[in-house]
Amino acid sequence: MNFYYAPKTCAIASHIALEESGAAYESIRIDFSKTEQRSTDYLKINPKGRVPALVTDRGIITETPAILAFIAQSFPEAELAPVNDPFEFAQIQAFNNYLCATVHVAHAHRVRGIRWVDDPAAIEAMKQKVPQTMSECFSLIEEEMLIGPWVTGETYSIGDIYLFTISQWLEGDSVDINQFPNVADHAQRMLARPSVQKILALQTV
Amino acid sequence: MNFYYAPKTCAIASHIALEESGAAYESIRIDFSKTEQRSTDYLKINPKGRVPALVTDRGIITETPAILAFIAQSFPEAELAPVNDPFEFAQIQAFNNYLCATVHVAHAHRVRGIRWVDDPAAIEAMKQKVPQTMSECFSLIEEEMLIGPWVTGETYSIGDIYLFTISQWLEGDSVDINQFPNVADHAQRMLARPSVQKILALQTV
Repeated sequence: MNFYYAPKTCAIASHIALEESGAAYESIRIDFSKTEQRSTDYLKINPKGRVPALVTDRGIITETPAILAFIAQSFPEAELAPVNDPFEFAQIQAFNNYLCATVHVAHAHRVRGIRWVDDPAAIEAMKQKVPQTMSECFSLIEEEMLIGPWVTGETYSIGDIYLFTISQWLEGDSVDINQFPNVADHAQRMLARPSVQKILALQTV
Repeated sequence: MNFYYAPKTCAIASHIALEESGAAYESIRIDFSKTEQRSTDYLKINPKGRVPALVTDRGIITETPAILAFIAQSFPEAELAPVNDPFEFAQIQAFNNYLCATVHVAHAHRVRGIRWVDDPAAIEAMKQKVPQTMSECFSLIEEEMLIGPWVTGETYSIGDIYLFTISQWLEGDSVDINQFPNVADHAQRMLARPSVQKILALQTV
């Protein structure tokens, strides 16, 4: 498989999951500073012009929660999700969807406001609310979602990989991760994993 | 199972899927005009204060793509997704994630801008871009994603149910669905389904 990523994006989550799955894959770096994600060649891979994208022998998969679930289902021996239990699987999918559609979106209002508004003053106004929205999201994760020690309790999963990835954005969003002790502890345990260290080392720009 | 919904929201997708699954379920209406989604009782069901929420005998599931996949996996005889093929399942999950995290979010900037900005002028500025962003999303769906006659080709799935639900928002977003002939045709075929007619009849406010 070929995995297309750009440094310091949400592609880190799928990258860690690939590394932990035992899958044979090649990493291909897309350079956002050269707008390679909008190049003709890359748009053939992902017409959305985004990362990550996973090219398999059957076709291309995009969207972090879908790639994470695909990796977990395709490499069950890695035990990255309870793939044979629809309810437990749905709990992880719901968590990952919240990260994707609410938390990532809240963060994106600081760095990608142009997606939703053209007026420069409005883009600035959006940025101002990001610390509040990200804090609210992580309060909910801390108090209601992260069961501990891992997201769904005793068993590590793709939900942990994705949570770690997005929790690393808090500092840039001017939110102190230590306000959320369980999230902060979770991040430390993730940082101790060799797979995580290996993928983070690829994020230099 | 108990299904919590509010009229004219994305809960329509899960509601149609439940109806088509053959599952035994009860529908419970949440009144947004009375802010029931923020009531103490409802926040015990969904601490996010959103719909939909599906209460099963094992616990509560939220987030449309997770609920749709859970229904498809739990009622395989309804054939709402290729649940035994990780690649085909991932294709549908990727499509549904795009609807959830990009298209629904684009639409929400017209009606729920307060989520991301406080300044009234910025909220107005956001609204102005919604016709453009929704048109761009549906151009991509029309040209790159919707294979036809159904989303993934010959086989109907939860992707069709979710696409239909969000395509019904185009008119309110000042986008003419007929710019996208395949999407418009798809919506007409969805409207002919008795399950869809039954759920739409519940959307009166």
